[in-house]
Amino acid sequence: MVDVITRQPVTPIIGRLVVVGLGLIGGSFAKGARESGLCREVVGVDQHAPSRARAVELGVVDRCEADLARACEGADVIQLAVPILAMEKLLAMLAKLDLGNAVLTDVGSAKGNIVRAAREAFGTSLPRFVPGHPIAGSEQSGVEASNGRLFRRHKVILTPLPETDAAALDVVDTLWRALGADVEHMQVERHDEVLAATSHLPHLLAFGLVDSLAKRSENLDIFRYAAGGFRDFTRIAGSDPVMWRDIFLGNREAVLHALDTFRTDLDDLREAVDAGDGEQLLDVFTRARSAREHFGKLLNQAKEGKS
Amino acid sequence: MVDVITRQPVTPIIGRLVVVGLGLIGGSFAKGARESGLCREVVGVDQHAPSRARAVELGVVDRCEADLARACEGADVIQLAVPILAMEKLLAMLAKLDLGNAVLTDVGSAKGNIVRAAREAFGTSLPRFVPGHPIAGSEQSGVEASNGRLFRRHKVILTPLPETDAAALDVVDTLWRALGADVEHMQVERHDEVLAATSHLPHLLAFGLVDSLAKRSENLDIFRYAAGGFRDFTRIAGSDPVMWRDIFLGNREAVLHALDTFRTDLDDLREAVDAGDGEQLLDVFTRARSAREHFGKLLNQAKEGKS
Repeated sequence: MVDVITRQPVTPIIGRLVVVGLGLIGGSFAKGARESGLCREVVGVDQHAPSRARAVELGVVDRCEADLARACEGADVIQLAVPILAMEKLLAMLAKLDLGNAVLTDVGSAKGNIVRAAREAFGTSLPRFVPGHPIAGSEQSGVEASNGRLFRRHKVILTPLPETDAAALDVVDTLWRALGADVEHMQVERHDEVLAATSHLPHLLAFGLVDSLAKRSENLDIFRYAAGGFRDFTRIAGSDPVMWRDIFLGNREAVLHALDTFRTDLDDLREAVDAGDGEQLLDVFTRARSAREHFGKLLNQAKEGKS
Repeated sequence: MVDVITRQPVTPIIGRLVVVGLGLIGGSFAKGARESGLCREVVGVDQHAPSRARAVELGVVDRCEADLARACEGADVIQLAVPILAMEKLLAMLAKLDLGNAVLTDVGSAKGNIVRAAREAFGTSLPRFVPGHPIAGSEQSGVEASNGRLFRRHKVILTPLPETDAAALDVVDTLWRALGADVEHMQVERHDEVLAATSHLPHLLAFGLVDSLAKRSENLDIFRYAAGGFRDFTRIAGSDPVMWRDIFLGNREAVLHALDTFRTDLDDLREAVDAGDGEQLLDVFTRARSAREHFGKLLNQAKEGKS
């Protein structure tokens, strides 16, 4: 694997970056930004005292604050990396501060609900808000797992608002690219639809199927007969339940829309099985396999760093 | 990985084993049986002349016949390894032959439909029929992919009928164990239910979801934003469409039952998302994750050969 990022002496373009929430994503963003040389100072904010101490020890941030207001003094960019359901409260707190000309951005997995919360909190247009979502994760969590390379060759979707400043968008874009991310811009609604279809709905189906089987099978005996295909299919049901509850609450409308569309198609498939309509089954399966192969190629290209 | 199978000089307990259909499963069974030393002769039957020639060249069988009647002369065990929808015709042809006391067994992924076809064809009780299903496969197919080790540490489910001879069951059981399989016995109906839930339904959902997304997204653009979780979830949608069409036609009733049960639970999940009922979502996701972890341990144990 060729490392596409070469370290050159870099002139800082950002004075002070503040990262609120030092979990895996916030910590990795802070660490990567710090290593990039693009920021004069990276300040962390976390409610959890041991996380603050570890963040400094591990070089994730230059310094850490418990108090949001103190951390945000003189901030040029403020990255919000708290759980999706904590965003509303955080935005309300930020709206009470004098943020000057600071650029606000976030990493939430759903965007519409966060934009709504920001508009409510700030009660005005948001030229300095750049909503974002890195499509990356890890089995690990917490500040200990912070990894400045976590976002390399991963997609990061920014969803600028109609009123977003070009300069604000550019700063956030530059930061993510410096971390090796493959940045794309998209409308808020489109982001929420695409993620509902390709991430949230599959998680709902996997969680739902595993629970549906487990609760009806005495002592989980049925899983003894499952093979490798089932393992792959249900792997995502091992994801963090709290995080996923929050995502479904946060992206409720787009998830319902994706689910209803899928259920309509599933009803048609059910009818085909019931009617013994082999031709329709073969059509669907053949199209699906061909789409799956296309998708597999895309992912392999991304893996090889060619995307 | 410790190889649990040690090769000892073996006394043949079967004179002539006939394997009908030399695809991946039939070829691998024939090859493994031949290498086990349990059979004096392994005879293959296949409609495809090049496959017959290759089967002999590759040492998959001792000899090969195009004619079913000739192959079955003097057979002690006849293994039916043709596609699931070809079983009915094959059973009708076998019913016209004098099979003597030969034990009949098969490898179909659904069992109820094959038992029904056998009862219709033979029009009598079936003391020498031992329905079976090896839960194994490979990306590869065809006689060229024959691998005598394919079934090692894989489950093989035998579904003896009420009238099945203990001796007939024992012969088939012994053969599969000699190939390294982990053999279990189960009722026909239970087998079809378990496989519908843990294999057929997940395939239907994966095929259905990929097609549902692909047919609505111009030029498959949506897949560009899918991440690794989606790749795992949809991997089984890359499976052979013809084989899977046949499985759904063959296991129609159990699949419909599993699908309807799942749809009821999915409707409940939809209501929870719609109502913003975080508590119910968290309950389901937490139970699912815990079942998934339990299942993951089972699969790892099986992998390590401890099961």
